[in-house]
Amino acid sequence: MKPTIGFIGLGLMGRPMSLNLVKAGYSVTVWNRSASRAGEVVAEGAKLAKSPQEAAAASDFLISIVSDPPALEEILWGTQGAMPALKRGSIYMDSSTISPTLARKIAAACAERGARFLDAPVTGGDWGARKGELVFMIGGDADTLKAAEPVIGVMGKKWFHLGPNGAGQTIKLAMNMILALQVDALAEALALVTRAGLQGEKLVEVLQSSMGRSGLLDVKAPNLLKGEYAPSFSLRLMHKDLGLALDLANQLGVALPATAAARETYSAVKGASKEDLDYSAVMKFWKP
Amino acid sequence: MKPTIGFIGLGLMGRPMSLNLVKAGYSVTVWNRSASRAGEVVAEGAKLAKSPQEAAAASDFLISIVSDPPALEEILWGTQGAMPALKRGSIYMDSSTISPTLARKIAAACAERGARFLDAPVTGGDWGARKGELVFMIGGDADTLKAAEPVIGVMGKKWFHLGPNGAGQTIKLAMNMILALQVDALAEALALVTRAGLQGEKLVEVLQSSMGRSGLLDVKAPNLLKGEYAPSFSLRLMHKDLGLALDLANQLGVALPATAAARETYSAVKGASKEDLDYSAVMKFWKP
Amino acid sequence: MKPTIGFIGLGLMGRPMSLNLVKAGYSVTVWNRSASRAGEVVAEGAKLAKSPQEAAAASDFLISIVSDPPALEEILWGTQGAMPALKRGSIYMDSSTISPTLARKIAAACAERGARFLDAPVTGGDWGARKGELVFMIGGDADTLKAAEPVIGVMGKKWFHLGPNGAGQTIKLAMNMILALQVDALAEALALVTRAGLQGEKLVEVLQSSMGRSGLLDVKAPNLLKGEYAPSFSLRLMHKDLGLALDLANQLGVALPATAAARETYSAVKGASKEDLDYSAVMKFWKP
Amino acid sequence: MKPTIGFIGLGLMGRPMSLNLVKAGYSVTVWNRSASRAGEVVAEGAKLAKSPQEAAAASDFLISIVSDPPALEEILWGTQGAMPALKRGSIYMDSSTISPTLARKIAAACAERGARFLDAPVTGGDWGARKGELVFMIGGDADTLKAAEPVIGVMGKKWFHLGPNGAGQTIKLAMNMILALQVDALAEALALVTRAGLQGEKLVEVLQSSMGRSGLLDVKAPNLLKGEYAPSFSLRLMHKDLGLALDLANQLGVALPATAAARETYSAVKGASKEDLDYSAVMKFWKP
Repeated sequence: MKPTIGFIGLGLMGRPMSLNLVKAGYSVTVWNRSASRAGEVVAEGAKLAKSPQEAAAASDFLISIVSDPPALEEILWGTQGAMPALKRGSIYMDSSTISPTLARKIAAACAERGARFLDAPVTGGDWGARKGELVFMIGGDADTLKAAEPVIGVMGKKWFHLGPNGAGQTIKLAMNMILALQVDALAEALALVTRAGLQGEKLVEVLQSSMGRSGLLDVKAPNLLKGEYAPSFSLRLMHKDLGLALDLANQLGVALPATAAARETYSAVKGASKEDLDYSAVMKFWKP
Repeated sequence: MKPTIGFIGLGLMGRPMSLNLVKAGYSVTVWNRSASRAGEVVAEGAKLAKSPQEAAAASDFLISIVSDPPALEEILWGTQGAMPALKRGSIYMDSSTISPTLARKIAAACAERGARFLDAPVTGGDWGARKGELVFMIGGDADTLKAAEPVIGVMGKKWFHLGPNGAGQTIKLAMNMILALQVDALAEALALVTRAGLQGEKLVEVLQSSMGRSGLLDVKAPNLLKGEYAPSFSLRLMHKDLGLALDLANQLGVALPATAAARETYSAVKGASKEDLDYSAVMKFWKP
Repeated sequence: MKPTIGFIGLGLMGRPMSLNLVKAGYSVTVWNRSASRAGEVVAEGAKLAKSPQEAAAASDFLISIVSDPPALEEILWGTQGAMPALKRGSIYMDSSTISPTLARKIAAACAERGARFLDAPVTGGDWGARKGELVFMIGGDADTLKAAEPVIGVMGKKWFHLGPNGAGQTIKLAMNMILALQVDALAEALALVTRAGLQGEKLVEVLQSSMGRSGLLDVKAPNLLKGEYAPSFSLRLMHKDLGLALDLANQLGVALPATAAARETYSAVKGASKEDLDYSAVMKFWKP
Repeated sequence: MKPTIGFIGLGLMGRPMSLNLVKAGYSVTVWNRSASRAGEVVAEGAKLAKSPQEAAAASDFLISIVSDPPALEEILWGTQGAMPALKRGSIYMDSSTISPTLARKIAAACAERGARFLDAPVTGGDWGARKGELVFMIGGDADTLKAAEPVIGVMGKKWFHLGPNGAGQTIKLAMNMILALQVDALAEALALVTRAGLQGEKLVEVLQSSMGRSGLLDVKAPNLLKGEYAPSFSLRLMHKDLGLALDLANQLGVALPATAAARETYSAVKGASKEDLDYSAVMKFWKP
């Protein structure tokens, strides 16, 4: 029998994810800080909870995806928070990007209540969320993942079991470091060649016939060349993730010189921009 | 009628390049600092010059490819150097990786003698050199390139006209910055996840299903995971190219924070290694 | 009439600070996580509280100095925490090094209870604490500081009113950045000259007759030359403070490239060291 | 008997240095690229040479001080250069800031001609040059230095024998790294506190009562606070010296992460400034 599902966080990612669960025939109870965002998924048949607590109490399988660690802590441990209402034997899966330390703290709190936790950040963007083609990076035990797979399979096309709780978040942060540095490297290279009087398009053309070509650079290069940065993955969030990666590295005592240098560049752009832009706007460090 | 060709520098790249020219029916006169390396290409029909000067004097089209700027300056302006022997109306094409400043200095010296210059660094490795499938990044004027195309086409499958003299070198340095940072980013990410107790293989597996995947990372990831760094493109040369890129940026007044940070990491590994390794050995900064 | 004083945190700094207050005739109630450290100050006449709450309830003027933000949050808001027990009209002064954000959160919580808050981190080391010659960097309003001055004057010789709450911490973090970079710069310079085959002592000798000479470098240079790093100000704490400074900068969107680079170096040494050493042990990045 | 002196380079430093030698009774022959700068010293009794060669040929003790390595190479090995005219048994002392590699190349060329070389960069500024109170950092052999001391003593108050040829330059570069990082650290700290809404003057006030205080920071802090950067030691020259230090480090394989990060910051300011400013203008990275 299908588990009843609680779903907290109806942002750019959470709305299509929860909608896919409703459409797949699950009974879903949703909650969002501003209830107005629940319109579409409620119209399709989801129930609307009055609090995270109510969403947790109503479900065998709770899912959350919110923008940052403080938002998640508020949902779990704030007034009418979800944690004390988690059902014994239930599964809780968080798909926010948070620190591995917080993921392990949540796992311990779940264990105390007899619930099981998966940290399961995603990649694939809102486009992947709509198509049900997200990729999940999962930390937690194998049996819990096995039990969760039918639900995950509705939202994603692929999932990786990466280790115990915290592992999903650790790999997600490592991945985002790589993405942030690839884009920053392209920006530095474009800054150099255009200051030298050459056309940036020429560099991109050569890059695209080289081994350094990646899907990411194909997608982002036009942004950097045109100076147009409509948000796909926002600079504010990428900057936050670089911060989480560096916090983890500093806690473990691992030096990450290039990541640290790139983070400062993203930081300068964040400080100089009023609106939130795509993270490819790191180019504005050189071309404001 | 086919031009007579002079070819200076019979290293890992120069040997197969010159061999392809001989096989294509060109009359080729070669020179190398240690003549012993000329054996194979001479056996196939090339003449062996006694000096760079002699190689230049014998040719309508002079090509050079050596390991660094000082080596090139010696060949051009040292005792029995090539420059004073360049024929009026001839073409000289250098495929070493040098600074754009030196490329422009050579171009000016050629112009004084009535010769035409192309800076034309290559990518594709010794494998591409053997197959005649190199990619050339070319600075110089369009007519000179047009005249050179039949010769270039024997050694390469693709060439980009990137701007006036110096442009080939500028784009080459920018490309190598991107490659060096991609590998360094992977190394930082692997250092983080392995220190966190996870398997590096897991990160690479996720990377390969992400938009950050590149041909370069597919090729280099196994090196980093196994700690085996047999040279394909050597760390010593990549370190030199990062230095040339940073020199150029500093001359132009462009800050390149992540490139500068990565260069120091490559530098530390260079300082700690006795043998010359592939540049993916930057991983040794974290796993000596 | 003298205010009754509560004093929380009897570490390297807190013990001599509270002792000076007792000796100056104040009625002092102390608390420390491990009560054993209270021996000396109790022998001199201080009372020992059973909890932070009890210490707060017994005092007109509460002082705390602990090692990091989580320790302080536990003392204020944990079980039997001090915050809910603060007396209306009392002054609370914290001399830990924490984030300006936490300082402002504490100030707001104090205001709600009708108490007044000063963030007042110190410099001068345990030596300065014993002599009553600390320097206080103070954020808060001028009247509160005026009221606190007699108490501060027992522990310190100098205090600076730097702005509203949070200002004391902001300036403290900025100061520690400067100190950390001065020592790291000396370490980089020594690494360079010794690798070049020269004696580090020669560099220090020249430095001491230059405008770059500082009291700090006079004190730390012998550590770096001898490779002896008995803790005066610990690397673990300096590393934490660099993290707080960078967190603040990233929150404000200010790029700090050299600070970020130095932090990674401290981080690598922290990761490689079992014991806690003086922060001058950053030299071990080059000479493990 | 006093040696006859040749003096090449009559810039901000060279003019007062040569003038002091004339006033001390030495017979001095000067040369400068633009002869107009020789007016004052010739008026005091110096002879004016027509070329570096003539200055060298006329002297037992040749001194040079020019702005960068290419300028020095031109003077030594260019048309009518000094090197081929050096007298057997003479002493040649260069006080420019150049690379240790070039210093050793000059030493070798001197030895071939039977002359002796000292690399002897200075510190103390034009003020120190006028007062005859420069500090000399000297590489070369002890006997040569002993023979040179009477001449050095006219221009300087202190000299350090630091090792064989190249040692003077190595220590000078290491010193300038320390100075550049001290000023950059102050700039980063000021950027942070002012962005946080505090007055930079407050930070400087606290700094001046701390162990981080240095003569350098006392002198430069007012520049940073006022945004006035009239050149004392120019940013262009400091940027060049950071480049020489990093070149040396990279050649030796020593990572200098904070120096490299700071160099990029200086580079950005150099790229954005039309005029040449004092190196304390690194503050313009944050406050253009």
